[in-house]
Amino acid sequence: MRDLRPLLAPTSVAIVGASSRLNSVAARPLTNLQEMEYGGAIYPINPHSSEIAGIRCYPNLEELPEVPELALLVLPAKHVLSTLESCARRQVRAAIVISAGFAERSQDGAQAQARMGELAQESGMVICGPNSLGVLNFVDRIPLTFGSVFDMKHSPGGRVGLVSQSGGVLVGLANRAFDAGVNISYAVATGNEADLELSETVEYLAENPETDVVVAIVEAIRDGPRFLSLCDRMLELGKPLIVYKIGRSEKGKAAALSHTGALAGSYPVLQAVFRQRGVIEAEEIDDLFALAGACAGGRFPTCPGLGVITESGGAGAMTADSADELGLTVATIGEETGQRLKEFVPKFASDQVTNPFDVTSVIAENPASVGDMAEAFFEDPAVGGLLVITAGSGEPGKARMQALLDHADTSNKPVFGVILAGSSATPSYQLLRSGNIPAFHSPAKAVASMAALWHFTQARKRHQARSRASQKPVASAVRVKDALAGLGRAPTEYDAKRFLRQCGLLVVEERLASSVSEAIEHAETLGYPLALKIQSPQIVHKTEVGGISLNLNDRQAVETAYQEILARAQEAEPTADIVGMLVSRMVPTPLELVAGMHVDPTFGPLILFGLGGIWVEVFDEAAMCPAPLIAEDTLEMVTQLRGASLLQGARNMPAVRPEEIQSLLLTLSEIAMAAGGLLGGIDINPLVPTSDGRLMILDASLYLG
Amino acid sequence: MRDLRPLLAPTSVAIVGASSRLNSVAARPLTNLQEMEYGGAIYPINPHSSEIAGIRCYPNLEELPEVPELALLVLPAKHVLSTLESCARRQVRAAIVISAGFAERSQDGAQAQARMGELAQESGMVICGPNSLGVLNFVDRIPLTFGSVFDMKHSPGGRVGLVSQSGGVLVGLANRAFDAGVNISYAVATGNEADLELSETVEYLAENPETDVVVAIVEAIRDGPRFLSLCDRMLELGKPLIVYKIGRSEKGKAAALSHTGALAGSYPVLQAVFRQRGVIEAEEIDDLFALAGACAGGRFPTCPGLGVITESGGAGAMTADSADELGLTVATIGEETGQRLKEFVPKFASDQVTNPFDVTSVIAENPASVGDMAEAFFEDPAVGGLLVITAGSGEPGKARMQALLDHADTSNKPVFGVILAGSSATPSYQLLRSGNIPAFHSPAKAVASMAALWHFTQARKRHQARSRASQKPVASAVRVKDALAGLGRAPTEYDAKRFLRQCGLLVVEERLASSVSEAIEHAETLGYPLALKIQSPQIVHKTEVGGISLNLNDRQAVETAYQEILARAQEAEPTADIVGMLVSRMVPTPLELVAGMHVDPTFGPLILFGLGGIWVEVFDEAAMCPAPLIAEDTLEMVTQLRGASLLQGARNMPAVRPEEIQSLLLTLSEIAMAAGGLLGGIDINPLVPTSDGRLMILDASLYLG
Repeated sequence: MRDLRPLLAPTSVAIVGASSRLNSVAARPLTNLQEMEYGGAIYPINPHSSEIAGIRCYPNLEELPEVPELALLVLPAKHVLSTLESCARRQVRAAIVISAGFAERSQDGAQAQARMGELAQESGMVICGPNSLGVLNFVDRIPLTFGSVFDMKHSPGGRVGLVSQSGGVLVGLANRAFDAGVNISYAVATGNEADLELSETVEYLAENPETDVVVAIVEAIRDGPRFLSLCDRMLELGKPLIVYKIGRSEKGKAAALSHTGALAGSYPVLQAVFRQRGVIEAEEIDDLFALAGACAGGRFPTCPGLGVITESGGAGAMTADSADELGLTVATIGEETGQRLKEFVPKFASDQVTNPFDVTSVIAENPASVGDMAEAFFEDPAVGGLLVITAGSGEPGKARMQALLDHADTSNKPVFGVILAGSSATPSYQLLRSGNIPAFHSPAKAVASMAALWHFTQARKRHQARSRASQKPVASAVRVKDALAGLGRAPTEYDAKRFLRQCGLLVVEERLASSVSEAIEHAETLGYPLALKIQSPQIVHKTEVGGISLNLNDRQAVETAYQEILARAQEAEPTADIVGMLVSRMVPTPLELVAGMHVDPTFGPLILFGLGGIWVEVFDEAAMCPAPLIAEDTLEMVTQLRGASLLQGARNMPAVRPEEIQSLLLTLSEIAMAAGGLLGGIDINPLVPTSDGRLMILDASLYLG
Repeated sequence: MRDLRPLLAPTSVAIVGASSRLNSVAARPLTNLQEMEYGGAIYPINPHSSEIAGIRCYPNLEELPEVPELALLVLPAKHVLSTLESCARRQVRAAIVISAGFAERSQDGAQAQARMGELAQESGMVICGPNSLGVLNFVDRIPLTFGSVFDMKHSPGGRVGLVSQSGGVLVGLANRAFDAGVNISYAVATGNEADLELSETVEYLAENPETDVVVAIVEAIRDGPRFLSLCDRMLELGKPLIVYKIGRSEKGKAAALSHTGALAGSYPVLQAVFRQRGVIEAEEIDDLFALAGACAGGRFPTCPGLGVITESGGAGAMTADSADELGLTVATIGEETGQRLKEFVPKFASDQVTNPFDVTSVIAENPASVGDMAEAFFEDPAVGGLLVITAGSGEPGKARMQALLDHADTSNKPVFGVILAGSSATPSYQLLRSGNIPAFHSPAKAVASMAALWHFTQARKRHQARSRASQKPVASAVRVKDALAGLGRAPTEYDAKRFLRQCGLLVVEERLASSVSEAIEHAETLGYPLALKIQSPQIVHKTEVGGISLNLNDRQAVETAYQEILARAQEAEPTADIVGMLVSRMVPTPLELVAGMHVDPTFGPLILFGLGGIWVEVFDEAAMCPAPLIAEDTLEMVTQLRGASLLQGARNMPAVRPEEIQSLLLTLSEIAMAAGGLLGGIDINPLVPTSDGRLMILDASLYLG
């Protein structure tokens, strides 16, 4: 890992292209440093000035009295590359290129940008940008940007890192963090990423002792494997990564491309990565710092059951609604907890001791009781985390929150305050935040944050299981390797299915026939009804050339079909090399599934599983997960399918044994990992459940890498 | 419509049960009135005090020097009913019952509450509550509540009404409105709704000249027809109704029930009502006032195309993402607009004049140009509304917003400001709001609000079409009435389908046979393959008694099947009255659809249309819409189906003619309206597309009302 300290906390800064023109992009970095009383040396560089803002100005880098640790470039684009070369020669350790006009503008710009990347590699200099808004170090109070330092003046350095590929939103978001009571450690705009990219920056911040959580604004992940190991490292460290993805839609992607010149990649693939690796995705930039605040609390739920103490019955119902939508539950509290809570309510209401615990009429008179109630909830094993909801205005609300604060440390379970009022409850918010209790404006946001923490916890467990699994020898590895070794250059359907059978998967009974008489022989052995399908490396879409005949019920039908298919195929594709005819048993297809493997250009192999036919095409009913998979991943994939109940026997479908799904998906993962670059994809479509709950492959294709 | 003025702005107030105990529920209404310097007479009533807070206290209502216009009850529950009776006798015009302990607590409480409702009806007194937090009149600055008056002190009276069935959230939400720069006119907590209910309150506010928009927090709609006409009236007035629904999930419903004693009703039905009638539903309480602010702007988009001027490319891409998700588009700007915008960018960037219009490098130097850019967008007919996005901190951001403000009135199209920063941009927010330009924290919220305005506009248009349609005589009305008149008491499948055929719908060819020979005769006339289905009013689930035989290919098969079915049915249901056997043509079913009608206890008949089989059960792929429908409603229903593309011929499905769907659904609507209470439901399942694009009914049931 490269040391980013010279970039984030340089001991001296040269501002190349510094200007004295008020409020210009070239003037503000210097005034920012002065405003924040930067303690290191500042060297403005501009051949046309002898002094800027009271500081001596130099004509070029060479004439500086020392080598600056960091160079901040605010020059016109055409001078940037030569300046960076001169920096590299003088062993400047880091550079921030604020200048724009590179890959986002033109082909020439893209070339200059590529050269920047090479220069960084050759010299070891860390280059941030070009087209970067810069870096804000809130810990040491060092602004290296033309953006506003409004928040740096007011905000204490915090424990949440912020990395953004979009510079334009960085300063605004830092201010929103401040408003949400979340304090930033370092904020970095990586710009066009000629050298330093998002993953490396997050990696560095994750290891940084000043940082507990990282928020990232992502347009494109350039280095997939690096991002994957970064996610794993953060799971190991227990530091959540929260992401907002820009460019989810095709239109959004196009807009993102036009301003940073980066290809935004496939959003569904990215979501699959996030899901598997515990990355917390914010739907909305508005949600980023509610999530960050929740994560910075540093406590994680022990189970998905919520305890809810609420001063408003309506807010309790909202909580239940949100929990239901987000995969959490309102915990069924134990009898002992119920008994303890009864002490707090008048006799006539003792039958109303339920969760959500509606205390409207109770705590008005005795705010301190909230603390004791919280303890009762904490000690209930069905409760994984607690929400305390108050209308929140005035002193009584604050007194309740104080009571909560006094008792929060009796447990390690997360506890969140929800205050329905806004500015009128500022003292209550401040009080909670001073005690490191995350505070929210609405039950829905609190529940969403609790759900995010729960998913992170589960991903951590899966990560541990994955690490253990990677050390175990895999039973089928040899079989998969053998099968791969036997694979020819242009696999037909028959080859694909033979390969999958060799890997241990269940394939429909079938034989390859190279003549009519052989087909009839196979037919008599297999039994009827049967299907005939032409096999040729050149004929990919068999239906289109009339290469398939179904429901053949006797030898005569097989003979006729064989000849007809052959004639049609030879007419449609006269040069095709016909390997023969596949004679397959027809089986009932009560439910069509699909499974497969796809090699993503960024993230490598992903395993796919879903409902087939119309479902996958019209309803997008497929789950993806990056390989290698573990058993827990396969369970997670199934729960993602809206039609999961069909696999469990809903609507009189044959129920599929869970271990069948698991072993199928793990085998595909095995194949993907063993294949290296050899395979580009596997399509199994359809895959059907058998009456005894197994999964049988009816058709499959292999794509070589 | 009852006059709610005495409730909202009483000239005198008696506080029955007033107390001097500091900060108690019984003390605060009085201190609130004093704090707000209420100008009318205040009469505390408490037999144990002679004076409270410096005001003379009376032992009972009878001894007051005048009849107060409003009575505010903060008594224990047991004294409430007798007090209300005494109020009614003295012709008090309105009462607010803050006391709790009624339907939400016990059966006795529910009875007392029902009596309250009767009392109101008998006397003409308006009763708000019980279990109400009270009323806050921000226009005349009159607090009639024990809740905090924090915001009333600071907030000018505004133009947004707030009605909540949950009292606990009212004051918190009023404060959030204040924070969002949205000013409330009146806030009413309707509590348990013994008399005054949500719809009546919203109706009154909608007619109120002080109110342009109403926000409602809904737990249960008690009077469906009243709510429907309220929605229509608001569409006529052009005043949007924004709703947050509490109790969407079963758990949430249970929690809501336990604290107000109201049945929360079916959420999907309510959503169908909202959708048809232009009610804007907020996903989150956090969104309520962003939406209200947008609506209060009073301008509505002319088309779904957005113009976007953005200082951050990333934020532009976020806007495109959100537009794509919410059914809006980023407008394709016209050539002339492009030419006008080119003037604002440097030459090298003139090929980058697109929408979103990324002005990062342009406006830094000339903030005023934003106004001219806005004008160019306004004049483009493809642009229905405009978003102007700024990072927002400091003076330059404010100058941009000032320029926008100066040009906003050159158009009636809505224009929203989006400011990425929060508190650091307070002056910019204030500036926009002072000019009645809605201001948002994030592109997503702004786009969601624009989408809400667009949906409201469309619902207004549909409402106008519905009004016109209701005045036209309906062609099939006579036919439907005749068919209904001929309907027997226990309709079988055969009766149901004959009825639907009489109403003009296409039903599969079939005949009823009462003997084997008759069945064979019908079979020979209809042609093969055929299905036989037993017909008996007592046999609802025909499959379960073996009452169906499919794929009969000749007369022998028909004869055998007839006898076998009869034997099985007679064994399973010996007492069933067997009407005969339905002989039906078998037709291909490439795609199964469902349609029908269902009478909701609250909202009356709803028409249903969707994909059948697994789809409707597992995937919930059905759209509902309250009857009577118009053609535009049927289009809207189809767009709600995720599988709508299948109806248009995706996946080689037979494309269904749009006019077929329309005429089917309009006929069902017609039947529902003509049937009055006679029909409780119609199930058409399956309904299949024919090869020539019609819709054919294969099976149907009628349920009498």
